[in-house]
Amino acid sequence: MKKLNIKIPLSVPESRRNEYKRNYKDLTNNSGHLFLIAGDQKVEHLNADFFGTGISLEDKNPEHLFKIARASLGGVLATHLGYISHYGQDYKELPYLVKLNGKTNIGPNELKNSSRLWWSVEDIIKFKKDSGLKIVGIGYTLYLGGQYEAEMLATVGEAIYRAHQAGFTTLIWVYPRGSKINEEDIHTIAGGAGVAAALDSDFVKIKYPYISKDRLNTAKKFQEATQAAGRTKVVCVGGSRRPVKALLEDTARQIEVAGTNGLAMGRNLHQRSLVEARALARALGSIIFKGKDARQAYQIYNSLR
Amino acid sequence: MKKLNIKIPLSVPESRRNEYKRNYKDLTNNSGHLFLIAGDQKVEHLNADFFGTGISLEDKNPEHLFKIARASLGGVLATHLGYISHYGQDYKELPYLVKLNGKTNIGPNELKNSSRLWWSVEDIIKFKKDSGLKIVGIGYTLYLGGQYEAEMLATVGEAIYRAHQAGFTTLIWVYPRGSKINEEDIHTIAGGAGVAAALDSDFVKIKYPYISKDRLNTAKKFQEATQAAGRTKVVCVGGSRRPVKALLEDTARQIEVAGTNGLAMGRNLHQRSLVEARALARALGSIIFKGKDARQAYQIYNSLR
Amino acid sequence: MKKLNIKIPLSVPESRRNEYKRNYKDLTNNSGHLFLIAGDQKVEHLNADFFGTGISLEDKNPEHLFKIARASLGGVLATHLGYISHYGQDYKELPYLVKLNGKTNIGPNELKNSSRLWWSVEDIIKFKKDSGLKIVGIGYTLYLGGQYEAEMLATVGEAIYRAHQAGFTTLIWVYPRGSKINEEDIHTIAGGAGVAAALDSDFVKIKYPYISKDRLNTAKKFQEATQAAGRTKVVCVGGSRRPVKALLEDTARQIEVAGTNGLAMGRNLHQRSLVEARALARALGSIIFKGKDARQAYQIYNSLR
Amino acid sequence: MKKLNIKIPLSVPESRRNEYKRNYKDLTNNSGHLFLIAGDQKVEHLNADFFGTGISLEDKNPEHLFKIARASLGGVLATHLGYISHYGQDYKELPYLVKLNGKTNIGPNELKNSSRLWWSVEDIIKFKKDSGLKIVGIGYTLYLGGQYEAEMLATVGEAIYRAHQAGFTTLIWVYPRGSKINEEDIHTIAGGAGVAAALDSDFVKIKYPYISKDRLNTAKKFQEATQAAGRTKVVCVGGSRRPVKALLEDTARQIEVAGTNGLAMGRNLHQRSLVEARALARALGSIIFKGKDARQAYQIYNSLR
Amino acid sequence: MKKLNIKIPLSVPESRRNEYKRNYKDLTNNSGHLFLIAGDQKVEHLNADFFGTGISLEDKNPEHLFKIARASLGGVLATHLGYISHYGQDYKELPYLVKLNGKTNIGPNELKNSSRLWWSVEDIIKFKKDSGLKIVGIGYTLYLGGQYEAEMLATVGEAIYRAHQAGFTTLIWVYPRGSKINEEDIHTIAGGAGVAAALDSDFVKIKYPYISKDRLNTAKKFQEATQAAGRTKVVCVGGSRRPVKALLEDTARQIEVAGTNGLAMGRNLHQRSLVEARALARALGSIIFKGKDARQAYQIYNSLR
Repeated sequence: MKKLNIKIPLSVPESRRNEYKRNYKDLTNNSGHLFLIAGDQKVEHLNADFFGTGISLEDKNPEHLFKIARASLGGVLATHLGYISHYGQDYKELPYLVKLNGKTNIGPNELKNSSRLWWSVEDIIKFKKDSGLKIVGIGYTLYLGGQYEAEMLATVGEAIYRAHQAGFTTLIWVYPRGSKINEEDIHTIAGGAGVAAALDSDFVKIKYPYISKDRLNTAKKFQEATQAAGRTKVVCVGGSRRPVKALLEDTARQIEVAGTNGLAMGRNLHQRSLVEARALARALGSIIFKGKDARQAYQIYNSLR
Repeated sequence: MKKLNIKIPLSVPESRRNEYKRNYKDLTNNSGHLFLIAGDQKVEHLNADFFGTGISLEDKNPEHLFKIARASLGGVLATHLGYISHYGQDYKELPYLVKLNGKTNIGPNELKNSSRLWWSVEDIIKFKKDSGLKIVGIGYTLYLGGQYEAEMLATVGEAIYRAHQAGFTTLIWVYPRGSKINEEDIHTIAGGAGVAAALDSDFVKIKYPYISKDRLNTAKKFQEATQAAGRTKVVCVGGSRRPVKALLEDTARQIEVAGTNGLAMGRNLHQRSLVEARALARALGSIIFKGKDARQAYQIYNSLR
Repeated sequence: MKKLNIKIPLSVPESRRNEYKRNYKDLTNNSGHLFLIAGDQKVEHLNADFFGTGISLEDKNPEHLFKIARASLGGVLATHLGYISHYGQDYKELPYLVKLNGKTNIGPNELKNSSRLWWSVEDIIKFKKDSGLKIVGIGYTLYLGGQYEAEMLATVGEAIYRAHQAGFTTLIWVYPRGSKINEEDIHTIAGGAGVAAALDSDFVKIKYPYISKDRLNTAKKFQEATQAAGRTKVVCVGGSRRPVKALLEDTARQIEVAGTNGLAMGRNLHQRSLVEARALARALGSIIFKGKDARQAYQIYNSLR
Repeated sequence: MKKLNIKIPLSVPESRRNEYKRNYKDLTNNSGHLFLIAGDQKVEHLNADFFGTGISLEDKNPEHLFKIARASLGGVLATHLGYISHYGQDYKELPYLVKLNGKTNIGPNELKNSSRLWWSVEDIIKFKKDSGLKIVGIGYTLYLGGQYEAEMLATVGEAIYRAHQAGFTTLIWVYPRGSKINEEDIHTIAGGAGVAAALDSDFVKIKYPYISKDRLNTAKKFQEATQAAGRTKVVCVGGSRRPVKALLEDTARQIEVAGTNGLAMGRNLHQRSLVEARALARALGSIIFKGKDARQAYQIYNSLR
Repeated sequence: MKKLNIKIPLSVPESRRNEYKRNYKDLTNNSGHLFLIAGDQKVEHLNADFFGTGISLEDKNPEHLFKIARASLGGVLATHLGYISHYGQDYKELPYLVKLNGKTNIGPNELKNSSRLWWSVEDIIKFKKDSGLKIVGIGYTLYLGGQYEAEMLATVGEAIYRAHQAGFTTLIWVYPRGSKINEEDIHTIAGGAGVAAALDSDFVKIKYPYISKDRLNTAKKFQEATQAAGRTKVVCVGGSRRPVKALLEDTARQIEVAGTNGLAMGRNLHQRSLVEARALARALGSIIFKGKDARQAYQIYNSLR
């Protein structure tokens, strides 16, 4: 595990550098690596990810996410302000990243990609003060390509700037989209990572080509993305449901070979019972935060179920 | 009847928590349950709901709504500022929820779903002060799906935040729309309820599949929606005209079985004479506020006609 | 003639209630009834209403409108700020209502219905102070239905609110539009009147089905519109050119039977010579302000030509 | 030559009336008549008007415009801020009118008619102070008809109001456009002039049907436009290249017969050599400012070449 | 080499003239000529320019750009704020020009040309203060023609004005676009240069027809563009990959014959190894800053490899 050496971006003013460091430590469990518990699917997929075949009944209640985050020992919960506003008082110890935009999966995507901010950064600053919670940063989903690219780039550019002005950390989801775009293509994914760097984000969440069969080579090729991101750190999306062992191997390989700085996980966690999710989260945390290998992590997983 | 235990969202600042509690009590007749008298159809359906075959002639005058609200003993009147501004001085004891947007039923819906705020939350704060009325909160209709989803989500997210900052309560109407959307599907309706929670609303008004024949089972299945809403409370729309007995049974079942926290009713009330509307409103109030069952409520209804 | 009993809307703050009363009296010639001299056609129809066959040559000069308003003894001139700014110094005794928007009749209507404010209410407040003129209120044309409905509703809602905050009176032109809309249908017209009430306007200007042959019955049926408007007062548009006697009869019937509170007249006045327009305006004023019947008014008309 | 009698619009506040008078005098060479040297074609036509067959090589340098304005003895140079910012220090004695918008001739016109302000009126006020130049007013091109009419009307209405608030004079270019519009039709042109008056502009620049053969009668018919403009003064565009004698005759006839208050000239001046342009400008100035007739002006022209 | 004689635009206020001079000197290496190291392709072309066949592996890391800029001895690095924010602390001696907008090459261009500002000029002023870096100016890419022309012109007009108010220098990329546009046509390119002058920019970056075979004559014809730009200085884009000798000859000819004031270079530099890029940058610098001819520059190039 590398010692935590924070390169504070110059857009953070002198007077907010300590605040930024504090937030960065809370965001990354004092490790520089990020374990993002993604909780924005209530908007992105309505109730489809939370209720139905193969989903634990515990997942029907939004509080399930908070319980998992607490059980993860180190994960940061990224979700919309409403959930934090309603449950935060009972989960005061968690670090939160407030997702500032979102869209549903109903109707034509192109028309909705104009994801505007639901709350301004100023609102979040005030919310942190009002709530007394560990709000450590902001998140935003950016779709490249398409009718609203210009609007989204301008919106997130300004939001990141204002977040840094306040000492917040930032993470953006970057997804190139378009009829000619292969969303699993590493070269394209790397391009999105570079845009996140141009926008001054601290972290970027991007896709990972889990479908590839040559998994070691894929991780090597994925270095293109982590290098293109420069000093912006990369976390990959968790991918679709698959055996825990494979999932842990992918995660370890991403960090060790591809050079990512953590992982984001949503459905793969919250669709499980709290006991299962806790075991998986702790196993992932051992890789992300403590440098364990996949085998060790799998043992942790099995010991906790 | 449960004791009133208000979970104040963290977006309400310390200095406005008492104001919020006061508003919440006035909104819910001190019960935590809501009886919403919906009076925004003058915009949504122009004069079609107020004048015509089968509609009491008393309904042609907008003041009819205020008389019903007064007679209901506990209902909150949700309507646009203009009506409150014109009649409020004669109905000072009523609690009001100001509807901030609206659209007509003329022309292509898709193009009008961009329902912008007619008044800012700041205007409503000033209006409360100027008028001395019991303005307890704000309302907004949100259409998910479609061209203006991004604009509407951003508008209502910010409006709810500002309302909470001022100590107002909030209720949003959430309707998923689109060519592939079944508006009576509980899974879809539950999704909308979850979005309301993500947006930090206190209450959400959603559809209820009244058309289903197996009414008890429907109420059970509807738990998906009240659970998806988390700590955001659910009220259902009143549905189309039907026998009073069935209406009271549906209401009782929604609260007892489905887990809703009240009801919203518009045409089913104001299209009746004041005497009829008063009887029905009192019967509904006995279920919503006092935990009476449908049979007891029906007796109240009959005793008042 | 009823005694002037002003119901001040609650959106007018305590400190501006006297200003509002003063404006209301000036707007209505101290009668509660309104005689609106509509002077916004220079934009709506370019020069077509002011120069051409059957139009008095006096009408080619914009000052003609001001001369008629002065001769009317009681009419309020509703026009754009530019005309008031240029001629007001020579007509200081007139009350003015500043029309805040407008569109030409060139090109596709649908695209232009997005009538934005040419001046903010704050500009008009300042203009009143700078000019020392009797600016008594603001006017806005609202098209219901169509692509810009949401924008227009939000614009005029806020404008009326701000006008009331300043003690100004308000009048809005409300026209339902759309491929399936019958613009002469009283039910639809009544719907527009109800929207004006929801928007908190003091007066609404709506269409009247002059084409109907059964004129008394039409006036009775038109009560639907004046009732739907609640405490918002209704004035009808003047309609197309027709014999003076019929025009006076329509006006008297609108007020006595349909329950309107005055009349708006544009081309029917200014396309006449000053002498003719003066005679007609005085005759109309006798009905609107003094409760004369059509026969008496016609005598006045004839005595002044 | 009439004595200069300035009718100050009421939108100019008391405190800025002297400033307005000073600007008006500088704008009109102390005559009430305007000689506008139009220098906005670098944007409207890119380099096509400045370099090519039949164009003096002197015109390739933007400074040529400033030299002509200086040589004209009385013309006001209307151009974008950039040119004034770069050359103004060497031409401090000139009066300038800052053109606030513009569009190129590349691509589909309809899509670009949304000419937004490049600079706010506040910027121009500050620029006048920073530069110490004789900035006497603002200019804006307004296209009536089409998709952006509402946006343009609102933009220019507010801009003129703010300009008057600061004591600036205003001139707007008004061009009705559309598939059914005859841009040479006097009735339509007059409509545009009336809109300028409704907008409170001091001057309006409109088309003139130079193509007509019966030139005296055309000038008489054009009175419709100058009358429709009311107290807003009219200047005509200079038209396409033609013999100097005809040009001088047209100008004299516009002022004497049609009732215009000056002329705007662009290409007809700057595409000539400085010597030629100077001779023409002085000849035009003798008509515009000193009431010379076309014959006298032609002698002046010939004496200066 | 001409002595540095700065013509400060009048939009720079008295109080910021020294700041402007300082920035201008830093921007131009104290020479009045500009060597722009263009580093905005991470957005414009995603990762395509930085990783792939024929590209030095050193280019995969964004820091490569900073190393080249340092090695160039006089070049200014133009890139987005994020890169400067992340690497600036290690390259404090470099002058930076912050690119305020950008778009990707994914999807339909027309829809994305609405390049809005990612950061306001006020943000950049604050960033300069917070970072202590030599931020000398702002950059913006302007596409003429197309749906967003009006928006872009207004955005950049205001941005340049605000930059000058703060004492920043400005450079804009101007590209005429459209189905009928020949992007290599000098007459069209000259038009774009004139628009930059109208917008008050200090420098404009435009295309150069490198494809022409008669290279001396092309340079002569290109004078049309540098003349049309007036006192706005012109730099040409570097063009596609070609032999160093030809590249140096083109650059010398542009400055000596066509009258440009420097060069912008992106891929032609950063796709080389640092050693190669350093040699080329120094050779170019000898032409741009010291007036060397192409032959002398080529010797420098060879001596450094």
